[in-house]
Amino acid sequence: MSVTAIEYDQVMSRWEPNARGRLAQAAMDLYLEEGFEQTTVAEIAARAGLTERTFFRYFTDKREVLFWGAPALQDLLVAAVVTAPAEDSPITAVASAIVVAGEFFQEGHAFSRRRQSIIAANPDLQERELIKLATLAGAMADALRQRGVTDPAATLAAEAGVAVFRIVFDQWVSDETPRRFSDLVRDSFDELRDVTAG
Amino acid sequence: MSVTAIEYDQVMSRWEPNARGRLAQAAMDLYLEEGFEQTTVAEIAARAGLTERTFFRYFTDKREVLFWGAPALQDLLVAAVVTAPAEDSPITAVASAIVVAGEFFQEGHAFSRRRQSIIAANPDLQERELIKLATLAGAMADALRQRGVTDPAATLAAEAGVAVFRIVFDQWVSDETPRRFSDLVRDSFDELRDVTAG
Repeated sequence: MSVTAIEYDQVMSRWEPNARGRLAQAAMDLYLEEGFEQTTVAEIAARAGLTERTFFRYFTDKREVLFWGAPALQDLLVAAVVTAPAEDSPITAVASAIVVAGEFFQEGHAFSRRRQSIIAANPDLQERELIKLATLAGAMADALRQRGVTDPAATLAAEAGVAVFRIVFDQWVSDETPRRFSDLVRDSFDELRDVTAG
Repeated sequence: MSVTAIEYDQVMSRWEPNARGRLAQAAMDLYLEEGFEQTTVAEIAARAGLTERTFFRYFTDKREVLFWGAPALQDLLVAAVVTAPAEDSPITAVASAIVVAGEFFQEGHAFSRRRQSIIAANPDLQERELIKLATLAGAMADALRQRGVTDPAATLAAEAGVAVFRIVFDQWVSDETPRRFSDLVRDSFDELRDVTAG
């Protein structure tokens, strides 16, 4: 009896419990120990006790270990903006979405801190992070337009939201025992209102 | 009598009047005609009637033709923020700096429009533009800190300023006969204030 490639992969997965998690863990350890540039996929797989083939079943490349959550985060932000109460102003819809995003991160504080150190040490990863944030701003502006918000208000609210998100996220990861994400978001939007009022 | 490399370059420059301008013009024409990716430095030099060696005397690579003005723009913004009247709020200092930047672009509307089309057609150039803008935001936040502005106000004002700058610049380049840059800036900061007030 022969097996298809998919069946083979399924069987292999049963033999490799939590392969994705083990690979991600090994990759993050190596990026912190040896640097992102220096680490090879072969080393990651070896450290996880798996094969390179298994690595590429879960991640396109070694950078994706750090960015695979981005599409889910974007979907979450967009859904939160689109489904915010109709009477919410654009900035209120964006602020609620960022609070929801905070819940997405809440469980992963230690992971987020490790990820942040890796990115801070590598200019290419910093560029990739910037591009991710710009993409999130574009997606939130589109979500606001779906609510009937016109430009430039849609773009301004989305860009302001991403600026707040970045600042809050930096505060949140830099504290070993951070304040609640939602409190940080509220304070930061208050600051933004005061700053832009001049 | 021998000549040094620098003297040789000076002599060559005299034989190639406005070499930088001719190379930039040829490069922009080719990027628009054939696409940025497809264009080679050899083609640019040939179109300008100059050598590749001359090209590399003015530009590190073909991308720099589109980005060589960025350090000057950054210096201008930083100087304007640092020297704004002491009583100006952070956002007022940033807004004045962006108006000054507008004067930097004023003469080059046709060039800016061509440049924008080239960038819009190429994802790598869009990424480079994002990174340029993020760098400008970081530099303006530093300039605000030099004025004694603390965080998060410094970062928020700088990020908000760059968001406005991007929106205003897009409006300004998309119109064949645009409104005054300073008027667009003032309107956009008013919009931002209204948006963030929720």
